[in-house]
Amino acid sequence: MTQPSFSSPEAAPTIRLKPKANARAIRHGAPWVYDNELVIDRRTKSIAPGTIARLEDAERNFLALVAVNPNSRIFARVLDRDAAAQIDEAWFAAKFAAALAHRETLYEAPFYRLIHAEADGLPGVVIDRFGDTAVVQPNAAWADILIEPLVEALRTVTGVTTVVMNGTGRARGLEGLEETTEILSGAVEGLIPVPMNGATYMADLMGGQKTGLFYDQRPNHGFAQRLVKGKKVLDVFSHVGGFALASLAGGAESALSVDSSAAALELAEKGAAAMGKSDAFATRKGDAFDVLAALAEEGESFDVVICDPPAFAPSKPALEKGLRAYERVARMAAPLVREGGYLGLCSCSHAADLDKFRGACNRGIGRGVGHLGRSAQLIHTGFAGADHPLMPQLAESGYLKALFYRIVS
Amino acid sequence: MTQPSFSSPEAAPTIRLKPKANARAIRHGAPWVYDNELVIDRRTKSIAPGTIARLEDAERNFLALVAVNPNSRIFARVLDRDAAAQIDEAWFAAKFAAALAHRETLYEAPFYRLIHAEADGLPGVVIDRFGDTAVVQPNAAWADILIEPLVEALRTVTGVTTVVMNGTGRARGLEGLEETTEILSGAVEGLIPVPMNGATYMADLMGGQKTGLFYDQRPNHGFAQRLVKGKKVLDVFSHVGGFALASLAGGAESALSVDSSAAALELAEKGAAAMGKSDAFATRKGDAFDVLAALAEEGESFDVVICDPPAFAPSKPALEKGLRAYERVARMAAPLVREGGYLGLCSCSHAADLDKFRGACNRGIGRGVGHLGRSAQLIHTGFAGADHPLMPQLAESGYLKALFYRIVS
Repeated sequence: MTQPSFSSPEAAPTIRLKPKANARAIRHGAPWVYDNELVIDRRTKSIAPGTIARLEDAERNFLALVAVNPNSRIFARVLDRDAAAQIDEAWFAAKFAAALAHRETLYEAPFYRLIHAEADGLPGVVIDRFGDTAVVQPNAAWADILIEPLVEALRTVTGVTTVVMNGTGRARGLEGLEETTEILSGAVEGLIPVPMNGATYMADLMGGQKTGLFYDQRPNHGFAQRLVKGKKVLDVFSHVGGFALASLAGGAESALSVDSSAAALELAEKGAAAMGKSDAFATRKGDAFDVLAALAEEGESFDVVICDPPAFAPSKPALEKGLRAYERVARMAAPLVREGGYLGLCSCSHAADLDKFRGACNRGIGRGVGHLGRSAQLIHTGFAGADHPLMPQLAESGYLKALFYRIVS
Repeated sequence: MTQPSFSSPEAAPTIRLKPKANARAIRHGAPWVYDNELVIDRRTKSIAPGTIARLEDAERNFLALVAVNPNSRIFARVLDRDAAAQIDEAWFAAKFAAALAHRETLYEAPFYRLIHAEADGLPGVVIDRFGDTAVVQPNAAWADILIEPLVEALRTVTGVTTVVMNGTGRARGLEGLEETTEILSGAVEGLIPVPMNGATYMADLMGGQKTGLFYDQRPNHGFAQRLVKGKKVLDVFSHVGGFALASLAGGAESALSVDSSAAALELAEKGAAAMGKSDAFATRKGDAFDVLAALAEEGESFDVVICDPPAFAPSKPALEKGLRAYERVARMAAPLVREGGYLGLCSCSHAADLDKFRGACNRGIGRGVGHLGRSAQLIHTGFAGADHPLMPQLAESGYLKALFYRIVS
């Protein structure tokens, strides 16, 4: 990998907004330019993906340095509004220093999302930190190309010794990038124990998405901990033990993790063992809907039930089907909650906004327990943690929603 | 005050939905019936405010026992879906026991909102608990009439010895009720120290809204505490010291409270003194906009600025004006935040929903610091605490919103 010569702005090609495009939005902080907003000719179409270019308005006034990808509907992503900026190691270092200061304010231990893409000034780039190890997801072509100065700056500013490139994200496909996972620096040896909310999670960083770890639910795990002391907890779509291990750390009498991935449940078991809580922890492998049905059949009930399914509505075309799936989760989970107990329902679907997701959950709960003479209070609405900042103008895209209900008679 | 004879359902008058009214909504948990949904004749118009009646659908099927108020647009509020229910002391006791179990799960000390109206099964009734003292706001006529069994049950279930009736709420006017504040049981002696998030607030329960205490901001105070260690904090519209005292408890180097009420600021000072933090605390009395302008004029800056204004948009007609006021707060507060610092902006306006409020804040921040080459990340969105449950179908009415931004360059 070599740093392309056009990272120097003088040599950068120029792309130009159409006369009717919204230059004002770019001036006011909009991070993206879609292909239909630009004058696209043979020259612009042939710009190599990841090239840094100068964006101008229709009157040829400079707007921003942008990263271009003709393969993507997001044709250009704003990198810097300073025409003289050099997108080099020092530039990355400044971004990392600002991002690090925020995370060090928030967390005592170095386990967090360090870079949350556009909002942290690195469009399409996600970096999670696990102590001395960082996992970089360069989900945009420009970052693939500039991965070398990026990694150098990351090591220097944060002091991490191991850097993993995780190139398995769905977004890479939209950018026309290949799937690849490789170690760019240092070495990954075995599992990494991750402390969060007093629990210990085991992360298998080379195992892919099935066994990785997500930081976004941290505040919602934290809220759940306030409900579970001495209680019996069911964690459906548990992954590596998200809400279950948080519940054990919060004093739950017992926690049952349900997931379809044996590898994920094994990591959950190792986490419980590391916490000295194996006796209070159990797992059940299977399709979540099947297990919910089986638990009902068996007459089981719980004080707290939390369901954190995968994105059922990742995109607009999948919305209606996704909402029906969320409703079904709520309908099947609600009857398993004892009267006076709590039901947590989560969505990580971009397309299902808060109102739509809440509507689906409300309908599901009504259908699940209305005939039992029960209803629900909505006691808490949570989002992703503060290490997942949003650009204010894209805030409606906050993908993670967690609703906590209390089931009452 | 006597318990009216019609609290016995056999004696209750009957009101009936119009054929086109949505009986299904009532069956599915809707808590209110508006006057335009009912058959209103001379007899129904003459029902005394607060009377308990039987609500039927157009086919004369029983739907619910309701509390009627012909003076209110909300003509009937659902009390119980059981036709045989007796709305008496035991009925209140069951509501209080359910509500108490939830709060005792959430909080170690008995300081919280105990009853949050419809969601806790007591339409229009709000009860805050301050240790051995409870403040009851009966903002609906039925609760005014049944205040005696209500207070008896409250004392028995919770063990509170002092009960204050605070009849100053805006909602009482809509119900045609008088303003009145009186002690119904026990005695209130001086100020009550209220522990919350490690801070101590002083509540003057007989002093009215200017010097009372609100529990709703508790989780947002808690979030702010994570940002302030060793930092210089400005709390605008501070009331009795909400975010300022929380910040001192969170390790802030200093906190400055701004409010127009000398009485409120005096209580804030007493709180700081009780915490042994008087040296780190200062107040500035004045109109918040004037003080923000003066601080800018003086070249002051802060690591963290939080603004928690009164409801600028309490109703739909006030919405546009209210949003402009929120934008103005953001525009004037943002430049006082140092680069890398935090800005918290709150709204307790029903009419300004989350999207509208966030839009106003985004515009204000853009206008306030855009010309300085600064922008903002949205790092947290918070609502009222879990002792303020919502009916799921009315969840969009969640009035309290707190947005936390980080100001970056």
